[in-house]
Amino acid sequence: MQILECVPNFSEGRDPGFREELEVVLGRFPVKILDLSMDPDHNRADCTFIGSPEAVEECAAALAARAVELIDMRLHAGNHPRMGAVDVVPFVPIRGLTTADAVAIAHRFGKSFAERHGIPVFYYEDACTSEGRRNLADVRRGEYEGMAAKLQESVWTVDAGPQAFNERSGVTAVGARMPLIAFNVYLGTGDLAVAKAIAAAVRHSSGGLRGVKAMGIDVAERGLVQVSMNLVDYRRTPIHRAVELVRIEAARYGVPIKECELVGLVPLEAVSDAFGFYLQVPGLSAERVIEYHLLPGDEEATV
Amino acid sequence: MQILECVPNFSEGRDPGFREELEVVLGRFPVKILDLSMDPDHNRADCTFIGSPEAVEECAAALAARAVELIDMRLHAGNHPRMGAVDVVPFVPIRGLTTADAVAIAHRFGKSFAERHGIPVFYYEDACTSEGRRNLADVRRGEYEGMAAKLQESVWTVDAGPQAFNERSGVTAVGARMPLIAFNVYLGTGDLAVAKAIAAAVRHSSGGLRGVKAMGIDVAERGLVQVSMNLVDYRRTPIHRAVELVRIEAARYGVPIKECELVGLVPLEAVSDAFGFYLQVPGLSAERVIEYHLLPGDEEATV
Repeated sequence: MQILECVPNFSEGRDPGFREELEVVLGRFPVKILDLSMDPDHNRADCTFIGSPEAVEECAAALAARAVELIDMRLHAGNHPRMGAVDVVPFVPIRGLTTADAVAIAHRFGKSFAERHGIPVFYYEDACTSEGRRNLADVRRGEYEGMAAKLQESVWTVDAGPQAFNERSGVTAVGARMPLIAFNVYLGTGDLAVAKAIAAAVRHSSGGLRGVKAMGIDVAERGLVQVSMNLVDYRRTPIHRAVELVRIEAARYGVPIKECELVGLVPLEAVSDAFGFYLQVPGLSAERVIEYHLLPGDEEATV
Repeated sequence: MQILECVPNFSEGRDPGFREELEVVLGRFPVKILDLSMDPDHNRADCTFIGSPEAVEECAAALAARAVELIDMRLHAGNHPRMGAVDVVPFVPIRGLTTADAVAIAHRFGKSFAERHGIPVFYYEDACTSEGRRNLADVRRGEYEGMAAKLQESVWTVDAGPQAFNERSGVTAVGARMPLIAFNVYLGTGDLAVAKAIAAAVRHSSGGLRGVKAMGIDVAERGLVQVSMNLVDYRRTPIHRAVELVRIEAARYGVPIKECELVGLVPLEAVSDAFGFYLQVPGLSAERVIEYHLLPGDEEATV
């Protein structure tokens, strides 16, 4: 059995009617919605669904088409980097699929979407066509407002669609990647400088752990600050290593970890890895979890 | 979808031919084998399999019938308490089944097994007919050698089968219970007295945590001792609490935890609970694990 995940982000997070429109489209396909959240501050909708590769690809195309109809980027403002109505469409292999499978799906989806709607598309992460496009932040740098100029730079030849800027819909990034773990660590302080210093210590870009992105954020309504992290390769840099490094760096300021927050979902393997680490069980794998043996498509399964 | 587990223990752990016989029987039913291990020291075979309630019940009956044919308790010796050829047959509800369902299956299996083979049967754990039979250790006290006398005590009227001792096959305990977590903590010492003192501190029978059984064991081949634990209700007493209490009690002897060992399998909920504890994620549930949503019989699932 093959299971693919798709996590499209759309640049509309305030209109409840938009959420309903997405739900109507999702309801037309045999997919399962894992998360659908609207963030008014970011003015951004975040949708996570899984299913067979065919159903997920078709559903993603239908969602993207509806978003293109409904969103006018000329009117968009929000606190999250963005460059298009359909801002990013990452495909994630969950079961019975390789990264190469997900890349092939991303490329087919991207080409079809770009041609159907006349929107410039860049491929990113594992679907990237050059290393300079692997990191979404590089692709999106300049945001919607800077895209018209960016598309005139020779290094930013589109991967699919027109080389011309689409004023109404902007630019779309289509990618393939491993499941990403989004994890926020709340610190026992309101001092944003501490969160920023810790984030700088643990993130890869400034010398920290490979595969870790981190930033310090002020969470004013709780009077706390957080280190907001993305782990892009949880097999090489597991959650426990990132969190315990935050704990060590926080200790120099006399600051404890108040609590942590998992954003979205996490793969079983990441959970069983952390279990094995904290409980000191050498070589523990997801196969030691009873439910692992109930999953569809397990070769040995006869139930 | 309903999934039942059965974990029968048979009093033969040395003859490789016996293992093969079990495998032949298991192969005749649509069940999935999670574990099949022979322990020569205990002279005991331990088998774990899952499947539909019907398949598991039928397979358990066929395995038990074969074990009754092959094992003669008059010749049995081994380092584990035992009272019968088919020593214990616990049924464990895994998915879509209640404890009451598992109890009904245990009672039906026990009656049928007892009558077919003329073997006295006691029901234990959630299947028990009186509180004095809930604990397997109480039912099995006296072991095979003491059962003829035990069956003459009015308090030990059998739950099924003849009241007379079966010399060849002994006595069988049939039960229903929650998934049990068997967990061994290796200490950084060879001092058995330390392991025994820690076991006494954490186990319920001597004042410790509810639902925890523990004993100190010498693991001579590693030059270490271990606290061997069973957690019989991991929802009320989760793994992390038992292990961290061992760690605290060990500290007074200046002894660290070297490593831990999980025996058999563990429910997803127990793994996600430990993950939430160590990573300080309040209210984390198994639903935050991607694979949870791929399990069969999930009402919402459309994939």
